[in-house]
Amino acid sequence: MIDRFPLPHGATIGMIGGGQLGRMMAAAAARLGYRLAVLDPDPACPAAQLADETIVGAYDDARALAALAERADVVTYEFENVPVEPVRALSRLVPVFPPSEALEVAQDRVVEKAFLNGIGIRTAPWRAVDDRQELEHAFLDLGGDCILKTRRLGYDGKGQAVLRENAPIGDAFESLGSVPSILEKKIPFEREISIIAARGQDGRVECYDPAENVHQLGILKSSTLPARIADETEHAAREIAGRILDKLGYVGVVGVEFFVGGDGRLLVNEIAPRVHNSGHWTEAACTISQFEQHIRAVAGLPLGSPARHSDGVMENLIGSDVERVPALLAEADVMLTLYGKTEARPGRKMGHFTRVSPRSAR
Amino acid sequence: MIDRFPLPHGATIGMIGGGQLGRMMAAAAARLGYRLAVLDPDPACPAAQLADETIVGAYDDARALAALAERADVVTYEFENVPVEPVRALSRLVPVFPPSEALEVAQDRVVEKAFLNGIGIRTAPWRAVDDRQELEHAFLDLGGDCILKTRRLGYDGKGQAVLRENAPIGDAFESLGSVPSILEKKIPFEREISIIAARGQDGRVECYDPAENVHQLGILKSSTLPARIADETEHAAREIAGRILDKLGYVGVVGVEFFVGGDGRLLVNEIAPRVHNSGHWTEAACTISQFEQHIRAVAGLPLGSPARHSDGVMENLIGSDVERVPALLAEADVMLTLYGKTEARPGRKMGHFTRVSPRSAR
Repeated sequence: MIDRFPLPHGATIGMIGGGQLGRMMAAAAARLGYRLAVLDPDPACPAAQLADETIVGAYDDARALAALAERADVVTYEFENVPVEPVRALSRLVPVFPPSEALEVAQDRVVEKAFLNGIGIRTAPWRAVDDRQELEHAFLDLGGDCILKTRRLGYDGKGQAVLRENAPIGDAFESLGSVPSILEKKIPFEREISIIAARGQDGRVECYDPAENVHQLGILKSSTLPARIADETEHAAREIAGRILDKLGYVGVVGVEFFVGGDGRLLVNEIAPRVHNSGHWTEAACTISQFEQHIRAVAGLPLGSPARHSDGVMENLIGSDVERVPALLAEADVMLTLYGKTEARPGRKMGHFTRVSPRSAR
Repeated sequence: MIDRFPLPHGATIGMIGGGQLGRMMAAAAARLGYRLAVLDPDPACPAAQLADETIVGAYDDARALAALAERADVVTYEFENVPVEPVRALSRLVPVFPPSEALEVAQDRVVEKAFLNGIGIRTAPWRAVDDRQELEHAFLDLGGDCILKTRRLGYDGKGQAVLRENAPIGDAFESLGSVPSILEKKIPFEREISIIAARGQDGRVECYDPAENVHQLGILKSSTLPARIADETEHAAREIAGRILDKLGYVGVVGVEFFVGGDGRLLVNEIAPRVHNSGHWTEAACTISQFEQHIRAVAGLPLGSPARHSDGVMENLIGSDVERVPALLAEADVMLTLYGKTEARPGRKMGHFTRVSPRSAR
């Protein structure tokens, strides 16, 4: 282990999780002269193709984690559902960024909302619900349409159920597995945006321009730059992202998702302590992509400029969308990225593309 | 082997040579969903880190080449000094792009100049010289300052000697190893430019904007976009690059180096049948880099747009230049690429960077 930052080139970054995000970070790490060792249960995971080494094991497999710690000079992760305890144990052997506190906050929707509200950041009204009776009380209490979500392990719209005002609750709680959950009031919003931000080991924060996002069936469909929001809304979003990073003593890239009300007011929907799907446009429209920015942060390098040289619309290729690839390749100004997945299952993210256009005045 | 183009994703591209050019093409291939198998004598070559598989062997090792043919759906190469005969043999087993005719032309300065002149493209006046006596005649015949170069295996200024007008020839011929050589007349020029062009399997040609290049001790020092040349000069350079590609029945990316005279007239200096150092800026200033363009061509995909969204200055990091890395990382708008080489020997290309700026009117 190299016991100093910034990591010299030739150092090894350990990555927990070998999906497409890990794959794109592996390419960015190589560009900066680093090697990457990935831990994933699947030896043929997307990141394996570009990693120097793939350690095959579960994310809480102590032996696999020890092997990762032995090879890596710093460890990071590509998804927020890494078990916290093993990560905390790992961080006694090797520096781990983002810090495990960020994982704890992001893994549990109740802890996340309480953290945000505690530092003065607005969210939709919410109640923790641990059983059916609490759900009934919370539903009456919040009023209006609500969304029931499991506290943990939800992603891409999984683990969610909508409750309509005045309609019976039915078996919503049971349908999610009768697990600790959160009830969130549905708040009408005009649009969804996200900020991809980074904090370096020196505490400096850099925010990319906010993207305007569209979700479909709970999965991100597109991110558009620039977002159609007022300057004050943009400033507020950047300030909130910075506040979150500072309060968490964060190091790395974070994705912060917001709802924008008709009055321009912001509610934070979710924090993802990792590079984020709504930041994929950065590789096409910025000199320093979010993937490189994250590697810079965890390696202790100075953050890069998040300046955007072009406008862009990023779209995900989900399941059979991958059949659009030939047409996309024939278009000018489309940057395409495929994840090396051979089987296009419904709902599976196969790749994405960004349609790049000259930068507008904004 | 997949016997059709365009190659479907998941197909494997074979790469002869695993240096930095192979490394950058490996990353581009992965982005398009392809796998890459590299053949290189060094198991720790720069491309090995990002390749799926490294076949260790000499470039003319029949068994290693057969192993590459077995794994690959198409084969390409990253440098022009691959022996032609094994490549020709390989092309009977698996499609090879660019075609071996391009290798033959580019490997021998006499064949190259004769090819160019034969299709009406101007070069500096030259004479083939096979012994000392021929050199003496050629030197008198051409007149003025001349450069003696070995016909084969020269790169980065290696295998060259300058002969000054009226000065004795001395042991110039012997100092280059008494091998078949070419004497070229030194022609005064105002600047050097290059065109990175590509030709697809469908015969379509796309040219990136010309770069203005500065060499130092025979090694490329910088490439600047835009080049300070007249529109007519640019048009002529594009036309010449296209003519070369068409005449060779070329598939892939080529680098064509030109001297620009004070009157704007162009002489072709050299053709490189591969991605080219003076095209590294494309990864920072274009949506489709030269590396992706080459992969698209050899995979039978449509070529991407070579449009340039930004201006840029690319500089190589040679030998101890790598010590500039910390300062470069602290600069905004610098895209840095390191090649994963651990030992910084003098003259060794360790990486490069492009300083990106908003696109000027031109």
